[in-house]
Amino acid sequence: MIGPNMATMLGVFLTDAELSPDQAQELLQNCADVSFNCISVEGHMSTNDTVLLLASGAAGPVPSGSEGKPFAEGLRECCIELARAIPNDGEGASHLVTIDVKGGDSHDNARRIAETVANSALVKTAIAGADPNWGRIVSAAGYAGVPFDPGTARLFVNDTLLYERGEPVAFDAKAVSDSMDREREIRIELHLGAGSHDVRFWTSDLTVDYVRLNADYHT
Amino acid sequence: MIGPNMATMLGVFLTDAELSPDQAQELLQNCADVSFNCISVEGHMSTNDTVLLLASGAAGPVPSGSEGKPFAEGLRECCIELARAIPNDGEGASHLVTIDVKGGDSHDNARRIAETVANSALVKTAIAGADPNWGRIVSAAGYAGVPFDPGTARLFVNDTLLYERGEPVAFDAKAVSDSMDREREIRIELHLGAGSHDVRFWTSDLTVDYVRLNADYHT
Repeated sequence: MIGPNMATMLGVFLTDAELSPDQAQELLQNCADVSFNCISVEGHMSTNDTVLLLASGAAGPVPSGSEGKPFAEGLRECCIELARAIPNDGEGASHLVTIDVKGGDSHDNARRIAETVANSALVKTAIAGADPNWGRIVSAAGYAGVPFDPGTARLFVNDTLLYERGEPVAFDAKAVSDSMDREREIRIELHLGAGSHDVRFWTSDLTVDYVRLNADYHT
Repeated sequence: MIGPNMATMLGVFLTDAELSPDQAQELLQNCADVSFNCISVEGHMSTNDTVLLLASGAAGPVPSGSEGKPFAEGLRECCIELARAIPNDGEGASHLVTIDVKGGDSHDNARRIAETVANSALVKTAIAGADPNWGRIVSAAGYAGVPFDPGTARLFVNDTLLYERGEPVAFDAKAVSDSMDREREIRIELHLGAGSHDVRFWTSDLTVDYVRLNADYHT
């Protein structure tokens, strides 16, 4: 989790459901893993981020098994909504970037690639500059420290194919750049072609205002 | 190694010494490990950095053992001089930062901490803003993913002690800030108190001009 300016993130969820401590912990851990643990502003981990789930029990128990799914899904949606709000509100951010890494050979490897792309200053400045720079994204995947084969990779930015099987493809750079300039939310989709594991990650872009805010702020 | 804007770093050393390929490889590898492999602009690894050592043999062989030391040391000095020039000339850099991590329990762990501090956008913006922000440096060490005990750590910036054994110490913040503002080269010295392994790493600061250059540059 990321705490801009060493601030603390405090997330608190309240429910009237009746949950045992173990049940609440498992539900929240599963949701945090795909939300608060999948965001980054600049990759500098904060020292004391916290997410709590408080259950009063007033509304009775959450059924186990598939009947309990709506509660788990609702909690996940809430976690994702709050988690996305953090990089969207990152210092100086002009874009929220959703990075979908698909078809990884394992969850951990797909996550590592998503996180490395999310933390690349060159990717994040390219987003700030509305530059559909496939080279920065693919090379970030390449140095993530896990297997990555450009020969099987495909890359989309805002749903436009930029790169396929080791080579850039012809695309309307101006149209993609215009969409990046116009839309607050940017979608990066990197298909690895290595397996069936998908990971979604969110990050901010890196702007002049990010530097101004963090260079001018003194402790 | 780091290639700003996906450029290629090509380093070529020429010598009239007579070296076998194995000897040259070993000498150069040892030197690159403490020079070109210890620099960072923003941590985005380039795709094709190269360092070559070409030996004509005209001046005769380099003696083995301790008599060969002057050659090895000379090569190392040349490597360090060229390697330092890269972050010093990083896009928009207003400071060259030398990070000495001392007293690590292993070389790899000390290196990991040095590299993590070097790549923290919050540390790098603090340097740009001449802010002796011990919290950003110590917390970066803390998330490096290797053992780090703040209770045994001591941190100096430009030779002034800022932090010792888990707590900041009283120091003249204005004097340190003024020295950071005035001097091109900033010295961060982090003593881990965990062993005897030292690593030196160099990085740039992160400025508004870095973002401008990398956001405005389109492929």
